[in-house]
Amino acid sequence: MSTAQGTHGILRFAAGGTPIHRETQLTDSADHGLPEPGPLLRNIDGPEELRALPIEKLPDLCHEVREYIWDTITRLGGHLAPSLGVVELSVVLHYLYDTPRDRLVWDVGHQGYVHKVLTGRRDALRTIRQYKGISGFLKREESPYDVFGAGHASTAISAGLGFATARDLAGQDHRVVAIVGDGAMTGGLAYEGLNNAGVSGRNFTVVLNDNSMSISPNVGAISSYLTKIISHPLFNRAKGEVWDLTGRLPKKDELRSAARRVEESVKTLFTPGMLFEDLGFRYLGPIDGHDIKGLISVFEKVRDMEGPILVHVLTRKGKGFDVSEADPNKYHGVKPKPPASGKVEKKAPGIAYTQAFGEAMVRLAEEDPRVVAITAAMADGTGLVGFAETHPDRFFDVGIAEAHGVTFASGLAADGMRPFCAIYSTFLQRAYDQIVHDVAVQHLPVVFCLDRAGVVGEDGPTHHGTLDLSYLGCVPGLVLAAPRNGTELVGLLRSALAHEGGPFAIRYPRDTIPEKTVPLDAPAIPVGSWEVLRPVAPVTLLAVGTMVPIAEQVADLLAADGTETGVVNARFVRPLDDAVMRSVVEPAGYVVTLEENSVCGGFGSQVLGWLEENGVTDRVRVVHFGLPDSFVEHAPRKKLFELVGLTPQQIHARLTAVLAGGTPASATLPTSRAIDPRG
Amino acid sequence: MSTAQGTHGILRFAAGGTPIHRETQLTDSADHGLPEPGPLLRNIDGPEELRALPIEKLPDLCHEVREYIWDTITRLGGHLAPSLGVVELSVVLHYLYDTPRDRLVWDVGHQGYVHKVLTGRRDALRTIRQYKGISGFLKREESPYDVFGAGHASTAISAGLGFATARDLAGQDHRVVAIVGDGAMTGGLAYEGLNNAGVSGRNFTVVLNDNSMSISPNVGAISSYLTKIISHPLFNRAKGEVWDLTGRLPKKDELRSAARRVEESVKTLFTPGMLFEDLGFRYLGPIDGHDIKGLISVFEKVRDMEGPILVHVLTRKGKGFDVSEADPNKYHGVKPKPPASGKVEKKAPGIAYTQAFGEAMVRLAEEDPRVVAITAAMADGTGLVGFAETHPDRFFDVGIAEAHGVTFASGLAADGMRPFCAIYSTFLQRAYDQIVHDVAVQHLPVVFCLDRAGVVGEDGPTHHGTLDLSYLGCVPGLVLAAPRNGTELVGLLRSALAHEGGPFAIRYPRDTIPEKTVPLDAPAIPVGSWEVLRPVAPVTLLAVGTMVPIAEQVADLLAADGTETGVVNARFVRPLDDAVMRSVVEPAGYVVTLEENSVCGGFGSQVLGWLEENGVTDRVRVVHFGLPDSFVEHAPRKKLFELVGLTPQQIHARLTAVLAGGTPASATLPTSRAIDPRG
Repeated sequence: MSTAQGTHGILRFAAGGTPIHRETQLTDSADHGLPEPGPLLRNIDGPEELRALPIEKLPDLCHEVREYIWDTITRLGGHLAPSLGVVELSVVLHYLYDTPRDRLVWDVGHQGYVHKVLTGRRDALRTIRQYKGISGFLKREESPYDVFGAGHASTAISAGLGFATARDLAGQDHRVVAIVGDGAMTGGLAYEGLNNAGVSGRNFTVVLNDNSMSISPNVGAISSYLTKIISHPLFNRAKGEVWDLTGRLPKKDELRSAARRVEESVKTLFTPGMLFEDLGFRYLGPIDGHDIKGLISVFEKVRDMEGPILVHVLTRKGKGFDVSEADPNKYHGVKPKPPASGKVEKKAPGIAYTQAFGEAMVRLAEEDPRVVAITAAMADGTGLVGFAETHPDRFFDVGIAEAHGVTFASGLAADGMRPFCAIYSTFLQRAYDQIVHDVAVQHLPVVFCLDRAGVVGEDGPTHHGTLDLSYLGCVPGLVLAAPRNGTELVGLLRSALAHEGGPFAIRYPRDTIPEKTVPLDAPAIPVGSWEVLRPVAPVTLLAVGTMVPIAEQVADLLAADGTETGVVNARFVRPLDDAVMRSVVEPAGYVVTLEENSVCGGFGSQVLGWLEENGVTDRVRVVHFGLPDSFVEHAPRKKLFELVGLTPQQIHARLTAVLAGGTPASATLPTSRAIDPRG
Repeated sequence: MSTAQGTHGILRFAAGGTPIHRETQLTDSADHGLPEPGPLLRNIDGPEELRALPIEKLPDLCHEVREYIWDTITRLGGHLAPSLGVVELSVVLHYLYDTPRDRLVWDVGHQGYVHKVLTGRRDALRTIRQYKGISGFLKREESPYDVFGAGHASTAISAGLGFATARDLAGQDHRVVAIVGDGAMTGGLAYEGLNNAGVSGRNFTVVLNDNSMSISPNVGAISSYLTKIISHPLFNRAKGEVWDLTGRLPKKDELRSAARRVEESVKTLFTPGMLFEDLGFRYLGPIDGHDIKGLISVFEKVRDMEGPILVHVLTRKGKGFDVSEADPNKYHGVKPKPPASGKVEKKAPGIAYTQAFGEAMVRLAEEDPRVVAITAAMADGTGLVGFAETHPDRFFDVGIAEAHGVTFASGLAADGMRPFCAIYSTFLQRAYDQIVHDVAVQHLPVVFCLDRAGVVGEDGPTHHGTLDLSYLGCVPGLVLAAPRNGTELVGLLRSALAHEGGPFAIRYPRDTIPEKTVPLDAPAIPVGSWEVLRPVAPVTLLAVGTMVPIAEQVADLLAADGTETGVVNARFVRPLDDAVMRSVVEPAGYVVTLEENSVCGGFGSQVLGWLEENGVTDRVRVVHFGLPDSFVEHAPRKKLFELVGLTPQQIHARLTAVLAGGTPASATLPTSRAIDPRG
């Protein structure tokens, strides 16, 4: 269902400048020290200094910015190609607009590195996405120039309209500009924002940064539409023809006047950006996003125009370097390069859960013709590229449109198909009502495959998947499971396929499976069955998914102290395993729950609920280990486990204290259920 | 921000037929027995019989259907005007399409009564929305003709595309038609659906049922756009002018040919429904939705057309009766009429929470210029009509677009305003990611006012607000509160306004406050403070919102048995009141939680979590009363309380059993945490 994207239009508009040759970073063995900014950039500590430059210097500055970002990010890792595409646009916006008084609202944040470099974070770029460094996304706490946080797509138009409205209510007169990628335009939120902004009449500019390429190849009619604008400017031809015709004829003036009336009638309704005009925006474009002079001339006018304006800017993702222009998707995000010193820890080798899921889906599709896979602009990130190749007719990338993805799946399920929706945990939040209203209420067998559940690492709080066990755990009839390895992942997928009675969700981390190959023949696992790994004892650990191997290490440590400890792989968060639960309560000692989810409302809650329902809350002492009830910062995954107190050693220490003296386990947590009542 | 809707176009297209005169049902004192269908309708047991009728009989049938629905619904109560508007459309679709083999996917369900009457539920209409009667919405369990359930808006296009895709994958050839109201077109989900369907190329028809009027006056650019199509068919004029021009000229043929080329160029890009054409749909319309002949001639063609088609049908909400045509909003939903026998229970008089909220908001807006109110096509339902009149510049009805409403609020809050989002509990599920990602992550002071929290009565499972304490209870930093009366509602709104540190949610029921006037001067309530109504004892009831008066009755019953019982008004679900919690645990007896929310993840979970965190899970026996972990059927609110076991008498009986013999409280529950592992 994905559409081949013609890039002819893009190339025509945005090909200016010869790209710089670079070795791909993966094979580059040059010096790994952090780069220094060029002579112009060195003096840009904020937009003030930028605005003091003469226009003629801007191309050189853009060149320096591009080099600095390339050199920094190919070393540190991070989102690269999106920012390379908006160097000129970012420079021109900060050059012409009075930021931060004028509000620039960036969508997603992938495209925000240039903005960061220009707004006092040039040197801080060297810490981006690192522990205690600056964020890889827009973040209000980080800078007054980041007027609105952004990690998920399609929010900037709605938020920008909020800023414009607040301005008008306060009787102020600054400008508000939202910068949105074409990929984000497939999101319903963007449309809702346009629909409301267009009719508001407020002074508000949306810059559509069109690089014809979001994370996955862009899909949907809106994308074809944008391509059509660029490559088929039929209007100009049509208009010209009428004019020429009448020009060659007798009774010239009468005809011209009639033709002019025709033209005016047509023009009011028919311009290249008519879809946006229909939504109440004045459309300008498309314009070349790498032509500084052109950008300045357009935005100088736009700055003083009234009402809702949409400026359609064509950019080239990965612009400026031959390798990234040739394969911008490869350079969308890059991994850090091991420095000469070899200090950066090498990533553990192994098969990612993502890959295991992808391979298993291909197998399931071979076994059962009802299996279809759906994702929302995450084909690569969810491991479904292979599925898309082997079963193109049963693969659906709906674009950034999670809500549609789920209701679409619901329709498929209602007519006998078995849809598997592969959506990151954090993004599935976008389809919550669809899960409840379109799937669960109707008891439809839709399978949700939540990649990136738990802490995701460097992407930070906007991308951690720390709430899914909570927000899914209350949906009536929904089966909720988490595998501890690849065998269980495959097994649970088979269980889900066999489960006819309603939704089934499987969550797994941004991590690797312990197996060396994907165990594609693993059998289905009975729904609600747990696995007792070490016999139940007066202290028993009930662990979910990623916490199972950690629980085993904790049990080893406790055993070394002389405390025999039971370990249970609680692979179903709903329903719980009644028989095992009964046996666990029997010794009337300590029930310890471990999960990579918020301590609010997740697996621990389900266990406490079971104890309450069975009338035995007074029978055991429950100790609950999970993620804090707060937004977790960005850092490598391993570091985050330390920060939240979930390493085996930390859990062992805290449990030992509980067993010894009754100290609440949470007393030593960095954060717990924390709301400051003083607000 | 709401747009005045010109209805000229509608009247022109859809005025056929003189409306029948009716007394408004409120003053009608005629016989209250249930009506009998007319002579044609009497024999329509399903579409088979309908299709056997000659076309000439259809207008009479439509007349009978309209009378039957009017007479039934004005007596029983239910959604009326939307169905009156689609009588001809529903008849024609079932007449021409081979339902249920051909799939009709109705959006929302408000418009589904005619469909029900024609598909075997003619007599069952007399039970609609009543306990054990048929549903007021589409429901798969109810009929094979209801291929997809619907209660929330904007889902039909996505679901319909799912059906069309399932059909193609299965190699079948039936037709799929989604019928969507113009109000639902403001929803991002509808746009995501169009965007994907348009590019899919699948045979799939969307019928846009345009009555220029959703529940609240329709807002947004899409609505203006539809009006423009109807009232300014400039294209036809423009096209005509070119043609006339060239027709009168010499060198006729050469010119005609050139003109034809112009016309073709223009036509491909420029038709009245160009926005839909841009999204990949072939657009047909607008057509008169009350002209049976016209509808048949169009849909006979559409039936055999390939690819995605959008048919724009103009209908008149409330069509057929003078009073409902004159004021269709009044007749959107009607209340049941007391029958002559006087058997129907009179609704308790009193001030609704909705009204109290509305009055309080007007007061807060007078006191603080930063206060703004946002709703999503629920101005009337959330009590904000008065606010809209007194503070039009600070009132925003964003249309059916909850996600935008919340992110828009977030933008407003980021620039110093204090937005209050008034959205029904069930619909706020549509903005879950926006609450987490755009509000909570950024610690922005957006206030969520959740009307219709808990069971809503006759609207049933798609509309009950039974999950909000669960899905909001895990959002970091969010304050969550529920008032027990109007004084607390006003007080909590003041607390929310004073709270700068992050989101604040207040949930209240579809019920009345106990006060006789709205206590608009009620002071703010300290965040996290509970109210001890009866001193803490070895049995203490912790009750939330609507359960507080019930808890007091339970305590009376227990006291009569000789068991002194504490009662606490737990008005904050987050954060809990630490001091009261400590005092409650002290007697080491029974802690009983009561809430009108699912037993999964709500207030009871927060209490259990507190006990765990404080290391005292083994200290008390917790007993938890709440709504079952399943979808609750439709019935009057009072009846539902009985069905779920939450009347004072039922709670007393169950508690007594627990106190006597340790029976789990849940053992006698109609449903508990129930997932059938066999699927």
